[in-house]
Amino acid sequence: MNITKDLYNGSMALLTDLYQLTMAYGYWKSERHEQEAVFNLFFRDNPFKGGYTVTCGLDYVIDYIENLHFSEADLSYLATLKGNDGKSLFDQAFLDYLSELELSFDIDAILEGTIVFPNEPLIRVKGPILQCQLIETPLLNMINFQSLIATKASRISIAAKREPVLEFGLRRAQGIDGALAASRAAYIGGCSSTSNVMAGKLFGIPVSGTHAHSWVMSFDDEISAFKTYAKVMPNNCVLLVDTYDTETGLDNAIAVAQAMKNNGKQLAAIRIDSGDLAFYSNMARTKLDHAGLEDVKVVASNDLDEYLIGSLKEQGAKINVWGIGTKLVTAYDQPALGAVYKLSAIRRKDQAWRHKIKLSEQSIKINVPGVQQVRRYYDAGKMVADMIYQEDDGPQSSYTIIDPGDSIRRRKLNANKLTGKDLLKPVFRNGRRVLERESIMKIKERYQQEMGSIDKSLTRLVNPHIYPVGLEKSLHELRNQLIVDLKNAKEE
Amino acid sequence: MNITKDLYNGSMALLTDLYQLTMAYGYWKSERHEQEAVFNLFFRDNPFKGGYTVTCGLDYVIDYIENLHFSEADLSYLATLKGNDGKSLFDQAFLDYLSELELSFDIDAILEGTIVFPNEPLIRVKGPILQCQLIETPLLNMINFQSLIATKASRISIAAKREPVLEFGLRRAQGIDGALAASRAAYIGGCSSTSNVMAGKLFGIPVSGTHAHSWVMSFDDEISAFKTYAKVMPNNCVLLVDTYDTETGLDNAIAVAQAMKNNGKQLAAIRIDSGDLAFYSNMARTKLDHAGLEDVKVVASNDLDEYLIGSLKEQGAKINVWGIGTKLVTAYDQPALGAVYKLSAIRRKDQAWRHKIKLSEQSIKINVPGVQQVRRYYDAGKMVADMIYQEDDGPQSSYTIIDPGDSIRRRKLNANKLTGKDLLKPVFRNGRRVLERESIMKIKERYQQEMGSIDKSLTRLVNPHIYPVGLEKSLHELRNQLIVDLKNAKEE
Repeated sequence: MNITKDLYNGSMALLTDLYQLTMAYGYWKSERHEQEAVFNLFFRDNPFKGGYTVTCGLDYVIDYIENLHFSEADLSYLATLKGNDGKSLFDQAFLDYLSELELSFDIDAILEGTIVFPNEPLIRVKGPILQCQLIETPLLNMINFQSLIATKASRISIAAKREPVLEFGLRRAQGIDGALAASRAAYIGGCSSTSNVMAGKLFGIPVSGTHAHSWVMSFDDEISAFKTYAKVMPNNCVLLVDTYDTETGLDNAIAVAQAMKNNGKQLAAIRIDSGDLAFYSNMARTKLDHAGLEDVKVVASNDLDEYLIGSLKEQGAKINVWGIGTKLVTAYDQPALGAVYKLSAIRRKDQAWRHKIKLSEQSIKINVPGVQQVRRYYDAGKMVADMIYQEDDGPQSSYTIIDPGDSIRRRKLNANKLTGKDLLKPVFRNGRRVLERESIMKIKERYQQEMGSIDKSLTRLVNPHIYPVGLEKSLHELRNQLIVDLKNAKEE
Repeated sequence: MNITKDLYNGSMALLTDLYQLTMAYGYWKSERHEQEAVFNLFFRDNPFKGGYTVTCGLDYVIDYIENLHFSEADLSYLATLKGNDGKSLFDQAFLDYLSELELSFDIDAILEGTIVFPNEPLIRVKGPILQCQLIETPLLNMINFQSLIATKASRISIAAKREPVLEFGLRRAQGIDGALAASRAAYIGGCSSTSNVMAGKLFGIPVSGTHAHSWVMSFDDEISAFKTYAKVMPNNCVLLVDTYDTETGLDNAIAVAQAMKNNGKQLAAIRIDSGDLAFYSNMARTKLDHAGLEDVKVVASNDLDEYLIGSLKEQGAKINVWGIGTKLVTAYDQPALGAVYKLSAIRRKDQAWRHKIKLSEQSIKINVPGVQQVRRYYDAGKMVADMIYQEDDGPQSSYTIIDPGDSIRRRKLNANKLTGKDLLKPVFRNGRRVLERESIMKIKERYQQEMGSIDKSLTRLVNPHIYPVGLEKSLHELRNQLIVDLKNAKEE
């Protein structure tokens, strides 16, 4: 599937902040647009006060970039924009330049489904500064949202302890793609299916769904509604029992389930969507078992999230399948991941890189300079620490990593015991895609493997362990020097 | 502009929950699909604990419905879906039926930009039950999200007391349309512009933006960056002053502003994006005024929302223009509006309506039955109360309205003094659009007029007044009778 072509019509070149275009104009007009720059996309805190993040959204990014061009209509629109003197914002020659723009950047990224941590570049863009800048906003939009939702789905799946989680958030999602992209990310992060049929078609995700309260209400009584549903769709039969009264609904569903059984059919499950789910799921289980319907499952839904699932499990709720909507697809308790995209180095053609930082009163908000790579170290298959290092220098022999937010926190890695691998992989070279696009199944499998290689203390929902991520010592020193230089420059 | 055709490729028929299609199949298979039904889309609580909601999203709904059809690819996809016995979920004859489906429903809606309240039908769909059901999920998706954001934008604009609010949430929005639809709704609800160029092009919204920290960082020093920007784009010049140090940045911006002034140009504003906005905006104002730059404005941004804006104003911050991203476009403190879509009446051809409710343990969660209309009453141009009544019966002469959540709360309207108007307007008749599509400017104007006609106590951000919305007395009695009947049926 091809997001831009299947879902969106052609280019999304204008899906960006106006300031990217005014800066592009400025770079072009001052003949600085070919300066080579490096930008990194990274976040500063794991969402939900958690111990890890699942990176997601790269396939959207690839599709966006492969289809990126300014259409005639885009350029005509830009030509209408005016400054505060009533004159055109952009010269026609600049619009002509955009119409012929050939992308030539290199992009490296951490592959989707990988577990990632604060300050690590998830995407690194290296190329003419005008091009790097143009794609900033859509990259942030796509990676921020899908990583947020994949992480939320992961947390919910952990709470559900391998029981199936069905995502059905379309009706409460933030817009059309707020639903579609969420269904994709939720599946990667652990959900078993979505209710969103278009997401099923676009992304190849399993879809699920049976009937709503309105089905029951459209009949004269509940039992007729159940009988009719079982008759017309015996191979996909989950009966929703709480339209009028959950206990009566259960009894009606059981009567229908027994009739189905006598005909060699199988009621898949009953669903409870309101009331006390601990109480009613136990009632359901007891009644079903008593009626010899041990294999009929109990599906529960109603504003669930990882905390409520945990609480229901503690209370001994007898729920086999979890239906999750609003709290998952909007990441209700933290609806945005604050990833940013920062310039870290720049050079004129054939000159050396000038490393760049932006100052802030807080250490952790000062970005990491240079052309970075991330090396993950493993001990017997378990990930133990990540090192951010200058790619051209390689990971230095000191094997010491230093927390970018607190230089007291440093750790010497035991090099002899560890194996390392670099996380940033080539995606585009000179504007052409070099990474084969991955199937959603492959990405989901990567996520599952990753979860197998991290320590459980990181996946604790509350107060998780903090995974060690640090700057390689010489990179730490370079950053410190840049801070000192900038502060001195101010005092002079 | 045409959302489906311009942005999405053709039909969005599959943008729905699978259960809408399995129910559709059930209705069709049991020959009940032509039963005439009435569904209402409504919410139960104003978002953000506020006193009102701005309805928004109808134009998306109209576009979706006008383009609704099942493509060959949609039907081929549906044909691949299997039940738990490995057999097809749908008969081919049903898919043929879908491929030829001609919509024939009537839709009435409250126009976008109108102030609305809990329990009022925002959209009423009347027609063959299969068709009503099919469109439930996308209608909820579109209306829930856009009404949420229009309301958030309204609250933020109120806090900003008519000062311009710029929306620039694209990078943190929930997906592509989570950004686009948010820009549209935010503009309707009071924002002056968006940073999202595609939203500008699609919806005809003003766009704004100048430069980022990276522009400054790409130069050897800040003053060169400012000078270059002022030179290349003097008619759209806002200088961002906090890349390295806000005070130095201000001084540099002032030097450039004075040079511009000497050349007959005008620095539009300086922007502060971090640190103590109360402190630095005062510093900026003092320095600018001292330099004779009284007309240079101060733009502030950094995770602002209505509460922070209010707090900054109380502290005497000297800010003229507010830039709002994440907190607005994700409706951060309540990222979903919980509107639902409930069956309220059904009939076989040429028979009388059977009124329908769903039971719940809480009064307010039991829906209102019948074919409803909403009449808003005004006293000297100010709205004073809304009555939900059975359209066929008309508003009865008692003029008594009763709160659907608490029947103790009732109010007798002084009929002689009041004028009334019905809020639900015809949008589709027999599947054809009868409402002219509205320009975004017209919708924005309606919102502004509406805000002029509501009491200020409703717009208080915390603990607002509760606007009276009630059921017309005979409708209240009908609902009570249905509740009693259903509860009796259970006890028998």
